Amino acid sequence: MSADRELVLTRLINAPREKVYRAWTDPVLLKQWFAPKPYTTPVVEIDVRPGGSGYFVMRGPDGKDLPNRGVYLEVVPNERLVSTDAFVKAWEPSEKPFMTMILTFEDEGGKTRYTARVRHWTVADKEAHEKMGFHEGWGLCTDQLEALVATI
Amino acid sequence: MSADRELVLTRLINAPREKVYRAWTDPVLLKQWFAPKPYTTPVVEIDVRPGGSGYFVMRGPDGKDLPNRGVYLEVVPNERLVSTDAFVKAWEPSEKPFMTMILTFEDEGGKTRYTARVRHWTVADKEAHEKMGFHEGWGLCTDQLEALVATI
Repeated sequence: MSADRELVLTRLINAPREKVYRAWTDPVLLKQWFAPKPYTTPVVEIDVRPGGSGYFVMRGPDGKDLPNRGVYLEVVPNERLVSTDAFVKAWEPSEKPFMTMILTFEDEGGKTRYTARVRHWTVADKEAHEKMGFHEGWGLCTDQLEALVATI
Repeated sequence: MSADRELVLTRLINAPREKVYRAWTDPVLLKQWFAPKPYTTPVVEIDVRPGGSGYFVMRGPDGKDLPNRGVYLEVVPNERLVSTDAFVKAWEPSEKPFMTMILTFEDEGGKTRYTARVRHWTVADKEAHEKMGFHEGWGLCTDQLEALVATI
């Protein structure tokens, strides 16, 4: 895998990996951190198994909804979660395969090394994603994730 | 799923579905029928499980090799086999997501209703695939598959 199609965020989170994984797989928790505030996430419908669908709606401060659909490709509880927007459900190709997201949750002395690798089909899409504010946006969301797992 | 991105081949094969499924999952058998003659398939390396890779090399009568890589998305022995060329391995995006192949094997009174649904990301790719000779090519291969399963 050439690095030129990948964006990566990694952070050491002060919580056991079971909690960080739960924040990614429990809809009630996902709604609380998934979108960078003041955006919200009023809808999270997920079927967390290989081939299961995910449907997320983010809502902007202007009330505009941003729906996202995808499919889980690999699910290893507390360790690894892989999904893609190349399908809207198993196995219906989406309008535009944009990215595949590989999340890993590793134990580091009771804390969690959380890493999100976002792989794109083209260099242009990776660059567009970066310009859309990948690092800022995912960074803010990860702040919210981190704050939330401290409370569960 | 709109039909305008899908190509379908279906045939009733006079063999139990275990044999038809085996012809798709045993490399020794795949090499015998996978390419329409006079093309051959000298290389078949497959890891038939969700997330497993497939690597096929077809060789033309002019000696030119045509490599194909993909990943299995869903594997239900004797029933269903789904793969895609959107990834070259789990989970590395390919140069070009072209198709996802959904094979089903259904029992019809001891024979097998064999159906291959090939879904594309774009209408243009579906049309290109059709013009490349999908129906003729897959038809010939299915003749070869049918002849082979009669002998195993």
